[in-house]
Amino acid sequence: MTTPWAHRYALRTHGMGSSAIRELLKLTQQPDLISFAGGLPAPEMFPTKEVQAACDVVLTEMGAQALQYSTTEGYPPLRELIVRHMARYGIKVGIDNVVITSGSQQALDLIGKLLINPGDRILTENPTYLGALQAFTAYQSQYVTVPIDDDGLQVEHLEAALRSGPKFMYILPNFQNPAGVTLSLTRRYDLIALADEYGVPIVEDDPYGQLRYEGEHLKPLVVLDSEYLGCEGDGGYTGNVIYTSTFSKTLAPGLRLGWIVAPRDVVFKLVQMKQGTDLHTSSFDQMVAYEVAHGGFLDKHIRAIREVYRRRRDLMLQTMEDHFPSEVRWTRPQGGLFLWVTTPESINTADLLKEAIEQKVAFVPGHSFHPNGGGYNTMRLNFSNATDDMIVEGTRRLAVTLKNRLAKQQPVFAVN
Amino acid sequence: MTTPWAHRYALRTHGMGSSAIRELLKLTQQPDLISFAGGLPAPEMFPTKEVQAACDVVLTEMGAQALQYSTTEGYPPLRELIVRHMARYGIKVGIDNVVITSGSQQALDLIGKLLINPGDRILTENPTYLGALQAFTAYQSQYVTVPIDDDGLQVEHLEAALRSGPKFMYILPNFQNPAGVTLSLTRRYDLIALADEYGVPIVEDDPYGQLRYEGEHLKPLVVLDSEYLGCEGDGGYTGNVIYTSTFSKTLAPGLRLGWIVAPRDVVFKLVQMKQGTDLHTSSFDQMVAYEVAHGGFLDKHIRAIREVYRRRRDLMLQTMEDHFPSEVRWTRPQGGLFLWVTTPESINTADLLKEAIEQKVAFVPGHSFHPNGGGYNTMRLNFSNATDDMIVEGTRRLAVTLKNRLAKQQPVFAVN
Repeated sequence: MTTPWAHRYALRTHGMGSSAIRELLKLTQQPDLISFAGGLPAPEMFPTKEVQAACDVVLTEMGAQALQYSTTEGYPPLRELIVRHMARYGIKVGIDNVVITSGSQQALDLIGKLLINPGDRILTENPTYLGALQAFTAYQSQYVTVPIDDDGLQVEHLEAALRSGPKFMYILPNFQNPAGVTLSLTRRYDLIALADEYGVPIVEDDPYGQLRYEGEHLKPLVVLDSEYLGCEGDGGYTGNVIYTSTFSKTLAPGLRLGWIVAPRDVVFKLVQMKQGTDLHTSSFDQMVAYEVAHGGFLDKHIRAIREVYRRRRDLMLQTMEDHFPSEVRWTRPQGGLFLWVTTPESINTADLLKEAIEQKVAFVPGHSFHPNGGGYNTMRLNFSNATDDMIVEGTRRLAVTLKNRLAKQQPVFAVN
Repeated sequence: MTTPWAHRYALRTHGMGSSAIRELLKLTQQPDLISFAGGLPAPEMFPTKEVQAACDVVLTEMGAQALQYSTTEGYPPLRELIVRHMARYGIKVGIDNVVITSGSQQALDLIGKLLINPGDRILTENPTYLGALQAFTAYQSQYVTVPIDDDGLQVEHLEAALRSGPKFMYILPNFQNPAGVTLSLTRRYDLIALADEYGVPIVEDDPYGQLRYEGEHLKPLVVLDSEYLGCEGDGGYTGNVIYTSTFSKTLAPGLRLGWIVAPRDVVFKLVQMKQGTDLHTSSFDQMVAYEVAHGGFLDKHIRAIREVYRRRRDLMLQTMEDHFPSEVRWTRPQGGLFLWVTTPESINTADLLKEAIEQKVAFVPGHSFHPNGGGYNTMRLNFSNATDDMIVEGTRRLAVTLKNRLAKQQPVFAVN
């Protein structure tokens, strides 16, 4: 059934494509299917009791404030907590550099709303986060991409892409979604220098930075940029990077709480944009998150999450090692939620997904993470949202699916 | 302090203007000032205990679901509650016609995002809701306006405005923000017929419809449109209206919960837009709101709110009657949160606000509610967010401010 509306929004929805994430979220609700498709945190790790205690404190002591309208910038104690939290990762900023967003998805929307005019090119890693493409494409952006390898963005290919005049670079330096790779420190320095040379700002998306399971924490781009430009200091950050992160992977995604760190004048403009977008993020959720997170609980909690996810990553990697066909390759992420599988080019992973679902296992075909097409023989696997047993069983099922498909293809090649 | 960012967003923030609402929200925090400036509900009416009980139920029984990612369309039981709730106001739709938004401000943003291309004209009442202008202007809209009187939009001036080819009409039929006036039933019929004749859709913004203090409820435009086009029925609404409302005025604005009712294909596109904007509205807040609202509590609660706001409206009107200078006129709203004051043209209410603040009372100067300028001698007063005593005292202070200003001006005219 169509209505007279369709012709009215033809332009604005151009290129939005099918809602892959949404459709996949629906698919994962089959009870006997083991899904590596979503990007969901482990629900058994949610601090439900702490949230309940926080609700009691907030509603008993500050109920009128928690249920009332509040300022667009966000709840000041939560913003101050973020300032302190970020300082420990070397990011020295003041409260005026911080705005709370309705999840980091809203951060990407506001950045797009502020910066993108129709036809603007955005430089991204290839592959990159599908949600960013959805956020930016709504503003009619185009894309110029740079390939990645196990050390992240291949900086040697960056200069050619920068010459095409992108509006900004969108980079996930840590345990990238979808590929799970991390940008090496050497490449981070090169990236910052090139960004300055070409005058192209960086949007640094860091939802997983705290979920590192091995190796040393690498300095965020916003810190390296501060050092490079000499613009570090309390509230005085005036550099080339907009940094965004989230409580979704460390506390609870259902609360929709993320944040942006940026130069003050950029924050001011983003706040104007946010005011017209949703006035402010839930006062209640912000106050509850602050009550849960402050006083050291969040740090303890993140350590507990790391233990669980590290074990699940190791289990998935070991099962792949033991059972996957030798023609298939995959990344070995040092943190985050995802790893990335590359099959022989003869396999189309969108077709493979149908066979996998028959085997009661699911993944995300990699094609949709490629802004300008390609990646038909790739897939993303999530290891945070399944129990140990499910990880092993699901990975085995996927190995069977891959072997079946590869076996079917052999005779065809032989006859040809 | 400026950064190299400024030139990059020159276009996208063009025409956003100063953040009047935000600045005013800050101003109202002076403790000894009586503010009629905000649009805040009365915090003493918030159902804090019921919210607390609902949090316990949700976190005890459905904690993992409440803290996890959820679907973009919204929590199904809450959408079903909205379907039942709307049916009682004559709006017969199915769950697929409903999407939950992060406050009705997000509804306006998503509608703008879906429908507005740079340069598109939007038809609005003059004056109209400032937040809608902020939402739409971010997509580089222009405005064509139609004046209002005590019966709302002056439909006799509508046809001329429709000839300019607006993308859609943005209409607040009940107790309009800022003017407090209500569109008469006769005019509603005329509006629907003209919308059909010119093929221009209507965005019906109805945040206050349930807060009627006297008179009969008038059919919403979405219902009249259904009847006119004969497209009524469960899930089958295919008409010319996108309807939006909110829990902010009946439950708690801090939870940021609104909704859109529209034809299914429009909802589908709005959901795509919302996915890129914030993935979904807080799972927790949606589930808590459902727990509070279902089982008849919300209806009882709305009746209690009506009693309080009706009394405050009556107190403000009576005090104005008793103390305001005879040259000043104002509207007598049948519901909602606001009334609208028109002073002699010699007074600029932005200047008057400074004198009012010296008298420790505040209002919103009316100019910013006029999309294409004008309205310098108008102001908006809110009567929901002050106690009875404050309403009387604040209105008296405002009367003094007005009299002082008018007295000062008399000799000037005499000399001239």
